[in-house]
Amino acid sequence: MDRLSTCVIGIDLGGTYIKGAALDLTGQILSEGKIATEVAQGQERVLNNVAGLIADLCKMSGGRSLAGVGLGVPGALDFKEGRIIESPNFPGWDNFPIRSQVEKAVGVPVVIENDASAAAMGERWVGAAQNLDNFLLITLGTGVGGGLVLDGRLWSGETGKAGEVGHMKITPDGPPCGCGSTGCLEVYASSTALVRMAQEEWRRVEGNAAAPAAWITSSGLADAAEQHHPIAEAVFRKMAYYLGIGIANVANLLDIHHFILSGGVSNAFHLFEKPLRQEAARHAFGMTPEEALKRIIIRRALLGESAGMIGAGHLVHLAAKNNGK
Amino acid sequence: MDRLSTCVIGIDLGGTYIKGAALDLTGQILSEGKIATEVAQGQERVLNNVAGLIADLCKMSGGRSLAGVGLGVPGALDFKEGRIIESPNFPGWDNFPIRSQVEKAVGVPVVIENDASAAAMGERWVGAAQNLDNFLLITLGTGVGGGLVLDGRLWSGETGKAGEVGHMKITPDGPPCGCGSTGCLEVYASSTALVRMAQEEWRRVEGNAAAPAAWITSSGLADAAEQHHPIAEAVFRKMAYYLGIGIANVANLLDIHHFILSGGVSNAFHLFEKPLRQEAARHAFGMTPEEALKRIIIRRALLGESAGMIGAGHLVHLAAKNNGK
Repeated sequence: MDRLSTCVIGIDLGGTYIKGAALDLTGQILSEGKIATEVAQGQERVLNNVAGLIADLCKMSGGRSLAGVGLGVPGALDFKEGRIIESPNFPGWDNFPIRSQVEKAVGVPVVIENDASAAAMGERWVGAAQNLDNFLLITLGTGVGGGLVLDGRLWSGETGKAGEVGHMKITPDGPPCGCGSTGCLEVYASSTALVRMAQEEWRRVEGNAAAPAAWITSSGLADAAEQHHPIAEAVFRKMAYYLGIGIANVANLLDIHHFILSGGVSNAFHLFEKPLRQEAARHAFGMTPEEALKRIIIRRALLGESAGMIGAGHLVHLAAKNNGK
Repeated sequence: MDRLSTCVIGIDLGGTYIKGAALDLTGQILSEGKIATEVAQGQERVLNNVAGLIADLCKMSGGRSLAGVGLGVPGALDFKEGRIIESPNFPGWDNFPIRSQVEKAVGVPVVIENDASAAAMGERWVGAAQNLDNFLLITLGTGVGGGLVLDGRLWSGETGKAGEVGHMKITPDGPPCGCGSTGCLEVYASSTALVRMAQEEWRRVEGNAAAPAAWITSSGLADAAEQHHPIAEAVFRKMAYYLGIGIANVANLLDIHHFILSGGVSNAFHLFEKPLRQEAARHAFGMTPEEALKRIIIRRALLGESAGMIGAGHLVHLAAKNNGK
């Protein structure tokens, strides 16, 4: 195989959109695209959409031959059988043999991986985690998720769900979480949580008056904090307090020291970086807070929403090296 | 090398005692011994004690030739350089090149590992974790520690301290922990914590009267719970509540499902097994509590205090297979 004339395609299979990119060996994007998933139209339609996007990306990448496809899928996966175990975004797809179905449709080897784990590998390949052998990518979006790299390799767990730092209990008797439990990191560090905490804090400070309309999104809240609105600032400090504890918990459990933040909330990183680093350092085990401040490194991700598809593509290279996952 | 006529020696280098065993290829103990560490007498004395114990174990093992020594050390380690970074039990030993010093003294290759991680590998070799590729060993003793196995290999972290589940914050504003932080799992699940919680609960229920004298140890407290003393039973339920959350946090973060409990408190496992399993299941992510009750397996360790030295010996085999750590 002439490696210079080949490409890989990484696909990020979301519940709303399918995003994809053709990539060369260095991680450069040769072509990219995004189409509606159309989950409601059924499995065959979704498969056709995936295959169609792959075909289009191939055409757009200048006639390179396709070496393989990496597929990032949200949810629990059976790696051995190449099946979706369960995915909230794909109701009715339990046990669906996604790997063999896509392989049949496109005629090249397919590697599957959890989407957040794939994103971690994307950041490691060409993003904020280059040269890092041990790190946790934490996605701060509508929910809080993550992907974990240990010893240079993805640790995606028994069913691809490792890195789910959002459902670490930080306060057992804290606010209810969408997962059914209480006090999860997600109820303090997601964009949803920021908006909720801002409403709570506004009511506490201002009585029954309504919070500014713009505070209905975390970016509206970030704008207010940027302009030093004391309530908005307090909300980001509160978020930093809990996220710092979550990061320290992971550092203490795994003895790793690099954390990469992605997702919408990470756009406001400069607003909470300082209290976040202090809080993580304060709870780090076996180090003085001064040592921990130097040792625990927290950075913003670089690839944004492209991390998943880029990482999925990279997994094709890694699988070829390791002769399959 | 005739593998049948060789042995390995595993050493558990504690702050008070050095324990060691000569083992054959199957994990059978050929000889074992225990001597005082004599930390206060200085490094040379400790090294002489280690070398002396190794020589005695060799003699006692019927003339087998020694293939290598595994050394479990409490504290942070530099695996590349074979040094102790820092160990609370060995004050003044920071940066000590323990691996090369023991190699010089005994003339065979030496592998070093964190003691709790070594214990996890001991349980995997011939104990409660045989055939488990993914598990966390949790030691419930004076403190709470642990060792983590992922994909069949030890994940001991960047400095050997991975698995320190005892310093996961469960309640950020909880009781102070010896580590300087607050609300760590250790303040709820160690033997020290059980005794403290029993005193607190007794005062709360009985006013100022003193708790029974026997409750000054966790085994005294276990005896009382065995006889259904309501306060003692409540203390074990409280411990199970927090330990269950800790276990769920690890299961959610790492997508692993087996947990092995060792240490003195694990002798009372039958007293808290049921609420512990229920609590872990209640907080497991992406599973119904019913599924989680089946999926999350919590067992007692089998090797007791021998796990560390046995695992350290096993690491010699594994290092030989992998051509060194």
